[in-house]
Amino acid sequence: MTRVGIIGIGHGVFGRRSDATVQELAFEAFSAAMKDAGIDREYLDASVIGSVPEYHKQRSLPGVVQEYLGLNPTPTWLTEVACASGSAAIRTAWMSIKAGVHNIVAVIGCQKMTELTTPEILALMGRVGEVQWESVFGTTFPAYYAMFAQRHIHEFGTTREQLLEVAVKNHYYGARNHCALFQKEITMEKALASEEVATPLQVYDCCANADGAACVILASEERAKEISKKTVWLDGMGCATASMSVLRRPNLVGLPSAVKASSDAYKMAGVGPEDIKVAQVHDCFTIAEIMAYEDLKFCKKGEGGKLIADRQTYVEGKIPVNVDGGLKAKGHPIGATGVSQTYEIAKQLRGEAGERQVANADIGLTHNVGGIGQYCFVQVLRRD
Amino acid sequence: MTRVGIIGIGHGVFGRRSDATVQELAFEAFSAAMKDAGIDREYLDASVIGSVPEYHKQRSLPGVVQEYLGLNPTPTWLTEVACASGSAAIRTAWMSIKAGVHNIVAVIGCQKMTELTTPEILALMGRVGEVQWESVFGTTFPAYYAMFAQRHIHEFGTTREQLLEVAVKNHYYGARNHCALFQKEITMEKALASEEVATPLQVYDCCANADGAACVILASEERAKEISKKTVWLDGMGCATASMSVLRRPNLVGLPSAVKASSDAYKMAGVGPEDIKVAQVHDCFTIAEIMAYEDLKFCKKGEGGKLIADRQTYVEGKIPVNVDGGLKAKGHPIGATGVSQTYEIAKQLRGEAGERQVANADIGLTHNVGGIGQYCFVQVLRRD
Repeated sequence: MTRVGIIGIGHGVFGRRSDATVQELAFEAFSAAMKDAGIDREYLDASVIGSVPEYHKQRSLPGVVQEYLGLNPTPTWLTEVACASGSAAIRTAWMSIKAGVHNIVAVIGCQKMTELTTPEILALMGRVGEVQWESVFGTTFPAYYAMFAQRHIHEFGTTREQLLEVAVKNHYYGARNHCALFQKEITMEKALASEEVATPLQVYDCCANADGAACVILASEERAKEISKKTVWLDGMGCATASMSVLRRPNLVGLPSAVKASSDAYKMAGVGPEDIKVAQVHDCFTIAEIMAYEDLKFCKKGEGGKLIADRQTYVEGKIPVNVDGGLKAKGHPIGATGVSQTYEIAKQLRGEAGERQVANADIGLTHNVGGIGQYCFVQVLRRD
Repeated sequence: MTRVGIIGIGHGVFGRRSDATVQELAFEAFSAAMKDAGIDREYLDASVIGSVPEYHKQRSLPGVVQEYLGLNPTPTWLTEVACASGSAAIRTAWMSIKAGVHNIVAVIGCQKMTELTTPEILALMGRVGEVQWESVFGTTFPAYYAMFAQRHIHEFGTTREQLLEVAVKNHYYGARNHCALFQKEITMEKALASEEVATPLQVYDCCANADGAACVILASEERAKEISKKTVWLDGMGCATASMSVLRRPNLVGLPSAVKASSDAYKMAGVGPEDIKVAQVHDCFTIAEIMAYEDLKFCKKGEGGKLIADRQTYVEGKIPVNVDGGLKAKGHPIGATGVSQTYEIAKQLRGEAGERQVANADIGLTHNVGGIGQYCFVQVLRRD
């Protein structure tokens, strides 16, 4: 089977984008990626949209995006797996190329989160948990992740400061990313003084909704070699699921789907966690980033708090994580997030991350979680 | 690349299924398909869900279905392209097997349409048309298809009776399908007397929403040959798009996406329209079935009305179409419809369609449309 590579990347500004419709956001990222790849529309065999449809007034998103981008009559489809939708889009595009069905595919993660009112959004988000047995009792997303945090604190002695160190780091890098929603640093004092959302999580433990889009252009090995001199290869692709009901999980201090997906991705790529030079992980809450360190085997179980406290996930550390700001500072346009993660790793592996550049970054990883870990998608990326 | 075959099929009863949640509907179809294939869960590498999420109170549907069906930790994803979502699910599963990523995949189309109120449903459906330039002016789905019908009548002299002959045929076969919503025949007199919905379409020109699920189990050639003695092969797979805005279409008497998708599918399978022995087409309105006859080249442009008036799309005719009742009589649980179509063709090619069986059915076709033709998916299926 052919190797699949990323030959173009594009990213719009995340934030309250009242200036643009969802198809306009898609166009922004798409046109940047096409320019980066140096190809025009005639090269494309298909598009895949990563998005969660119900936040938009416009439905049938692939149709409206295809038309607005001038891509008819090529095929399209949308993938939805909650916050991991963009990663699922990349996965299906990757499969379509490996299958020999398509040669070059544009993957566009795009999402408006600000068309609905806050109560409408909260009602929708609650339903991404298990409705029949759990969310009916009030388990919103902050509540779920608060339970994870409580349990991590209880079992491993993780501290409030360690959790908030994740926020301090991610805001530090968000301040150096012109696409981020929050381009400002925060101090530990400020974070500790922020309002409580769900014990023990405070405002600065939580990421924020945003509008935004990102795009990657994937190609078969043959086409990539013809077109691009800076291809980044999707060499390890893991995807796993776990029960939606947390009451059926073996424990609340990690995500079994992330352990399985990363183990599969490492195996496919023929690497181990020690080979990863830079990673993007799904930090919807600070505890989520700490659990990701452990699930991905960047440290031992229970030592995630220490890893960040020791600054080992900064650019100069042992394993730099979310050095673009992560969901926390970049904002979380749910369908776009997975594609944004892949964009950032490609940028790092191409050596184009500027002041956020990780030295000798030849192998990178993305880790994207849907819902409360009912899905996890992990990619291992490599430059030649 | 491996051939991909259908080794198991399952179908639930379509209708107002207040007895079942969406995951229970999925289980009904899935367990029937697994029993038909004669395999247990351990054989499955992944599941794909075809559904339009926003009609359900429960979101994150792949997660809840995976858990309810006992399929964790295998991968899953949902595809959404409006009414063609089930066909897109089959297409991505087919690609995943051709890619060698998975060997056996369950594809489940499942949809509840009765959890929301009628005004809520109408509001959502309107948004599947182009919101910015079209549906804001009141182009609901019946209005769009009424324009197609008006134009077909104007250009080709198609008659009210010819349109309603489609409804009479599909109700005739719905009365012989225990999974159909409407299991009763209708007369032309009754159809002609029905209330007008959008000139010239009347109540009996329109399909009805329904709850329901269908499932097909796909396998690689190697695994299919080990497991099944009645495999039906997915040999031609076409997918094409057209502008969502009908104002940008070249004409209103056919769907350019259907012409392209079918031409591609015929070519991939190495057959022509004259080789198709039985077909399922997307008859959301009677005019849609007539346009499909023409787009698929079962007859010349403009002669679709005559084809049905001559009873050539009945079981005994030249090209039997929707002899399970179609969307019209079976009901249209939007995410399930595409999988239901594939189920029916597999049943026909296996010679198991009972009194609705088409003689010598060795090659069949499905044609599924999303929205107002912004997407079309066509499959050519073959038995050995």
